Amino acid sequence: MMLAHEDPAIMARAAVLHARAVVFDGLSTCNWSRKIFEEMRAGGVTAVNCASVLWEDLRGGLDNVAQWKRMLEENEDLLRPVKTVADIHAAKAEGRTGISIGWQNTSPIEDRLQDIGLFKELGVNIMQLTYNTQNYSGAGYLELTDSGLTGFGREVVHEMNRVGVLVDLSHVGEKTSFDVVAWSRRPVCISHVLPRALHDVPRNKTDALLRACADRGGIIGISLFAPGLRAGNDASVEDYLDAIAHVIALVGEDHVGLGCDFSLDHARPGPYQVYASRDKGYARSLTEFATAKISKPRGIQRIHDIPNITAAMIRRGWADETILKLLGGNWLRLLEQSWSPMR
Amino acid sequence: MMLAHEDPAIMARAAVLHARAVVFDGLSTCNWSRKIFEEMRAGGVTAVNCASVLWEDLRGGLDNVAQWKRMLEENEDLLRPVKTVADIHAAKAEGRTGISIGWQNTSPIEDRLQDIGLFKELGVNIMQLTYNTQNYSGAGYLELTDSGLTGFGREVVHEMNRVGVLVDLSHVGEKTSFDVVAWSRRPVCISHVLPRALHDVPRNKTDALLRACADRGGIIGISLFAPGLRAGNDASVEDYLDAIAHVIALVGEDHVGLGCDFSLDHARPGPYQVYASRDKGYARSLTEFATAKISKPRGIQRIHDIPNITAAMIRRGWADETILKLLGGNWLRLLEQSWSPMR
Repeated sequence: MMLAHEDPAIMARAAVLHARAVVFDGLSTCNWSRKIFEEMRAGGVTAVNCASVLWEDLRGGLDNVAQWKRMLEENEDLLRPVKTVADIHAAKAEGRTGISIGWQNTSPIEDRLQDIGLFKELGVNIMQLTYNTQNYSGAGYLELTDSGLTGFGREVVHEMNRVGVLVDLSHVGEKTSFDVVAWSRRPVCISHVLPRALHDVPRNKTDALLRACADRGGIIGISLFAPGLRAGNDASVEDYLDAIAHVIALVGEDHVGLGCDFSLDHARPGPYQVYASRDKGYARSLTEFATAKISKPRGIQRIHDIPNITAAMIRRGWADETILKLLGGNWLRLLEQSWSPMR
Repeated sequence: MMLAHEDPAIMARAAVLHARAVVFDGLSTCNWSRKIFEEMRAGGVTAVNCASVLWEDLRGGLDNVAQWKRMLEENEDLLRPVKTVADIHAAKAEGRTGISIGWQNTSPIEDRLQDIGLFKELGVNIMQLTYNTQNYSGAGYLELTDSGLTGFGREVVHEMNRVGVLVDLSHVGEKTSFDVVAWSRRPVCISHVLPRALHDVPRNKTDALLRACADRGGIIGISLFAPGLRAGNDASVEDYLDAIAHVIALVGEDHVGLGCDFSLDHARPGPYQVYASRDKGYARSLTEFATAKISKPRGIQRIHDIPNITAAMIRRGWADETILKLLGGNWLRLLEQSWSPMR
């Protein structure tokens, strides 16, 4: 819903522009339900990287895919599966939301490079190399020491490049991330992140890394995770736009997109937060987010509020073509470059 | 290669007819290699149900799919993947052999009905319900007692029907097989089998079961497994045709096809034979086939000899249209009916 104090002329322009836009959310991890799928339609979301997998092994990774197949069947009036950029355009034309399955860890491939291609065939299009801690491929941002991309990780990245899985670095450690940017044969993304220059917390990324990612053609998805903004849970949509503006100033408007990081309708505190905050889902506690209050900026607390981002961009006087790129056009370009197999 | 004593006129007619035919092999389990793929081309084989999985769990089932993806990539001049009947026609047009991945056991789905659809998406198009012994779904033909299709097995069969996986009953127990024929919402196959009426060994099927399968629209693939023929390892191509003729007399020429059961280039005796002949691949010994000599009938001992089947059919005076149905036309009809999803 639009902000109550919004100028009606801006609201009208925003509605028209938002309806034109392909809106791509670089990552969300909700407790998925028909209610949320309806909200995606109300929010004018064209497609989402749905990435609830955090620590799963092979069985868990397959179970997550199977869960999506079931939800896609049961809600086919609202959703369509996304394996290609053409599927995203089709979702837009049909008035459905495209579901691109993603992972926040490569743990489901276990020690099998070959499984990257099998999961790609099943619709897993974006994989974060590691989630928070060390795995076979590299370190997460909360590991004791980040020794960089491992030898196996080099093969993982090249296999992802080869079969057409986009590499995501959001929760990956700084050294491992720089190594991946340099090693990958294709551009990579940081799907949901905020700039450390505006708020110095470990989960945020340095300007140097954001620049390196963009220099190689990648996309930085700006997150709505309020604890990553200086104002924290008091943040507003203006603070969110400040973060977008900072990254645009750093890397240019062609390398920035949305990465909403919605985590809606999970019990709070609840089992998913505990799972997310502990190593391997149950071992040592890594963050305070299992019990801490985590908000989204005022005005964009739920998916149906996403049009308020468009309105706020218009209010700042940003050009329509810029806004279309930020809402999804940039993501589409990267996905087009990333999702086809390499020969 | 053609039989040396063959009449040149029949050889010429056979070559023309074989080149026209869509030749579908209902099941083979070779130690796959480029040499064998070249032999398939020499034998004019349009497509094969390649079913080497016998006792594998989830990891083993995925590894088998990954092995095929690799072999398909490395031999794409000779092979193409088959997920639909259109792929088989395309293989014919391109002069390549279509590879349809199959299983001789539903063991890789473990206890997850949902995985049937995931493996279907990866190209596993035909699954034998159980291999030799009891699993969650029913009994194999070597189980102590066959109590029939289980409750879970009913759900497995309906899920295979729903997502478009063809059910195979070749190594399944008699009672379980009758139960599946009655329960399945779609026709099923017995991909590689010989008639017990001609040779009374446990692995062969009764006329009653063959008739029940055909009555529901199914296909019986006639096997080249010489120990299932009365003449055993002394059998000739004429004995093989006698078996085909027996089943045609029983169920009509629309319900019979090839099910070659080639198991080429495995070391004999060797690890694959031990794996095949023991329960779960390692437990009690179920058959003597780990060490026994197993031949194919004289004249059709390797895949490139398949045109000799066509020649022998012509020599018997069978009509061209009948031969085309037996070589693959009947299989195509069943696959067309079986492989699309049901709504």
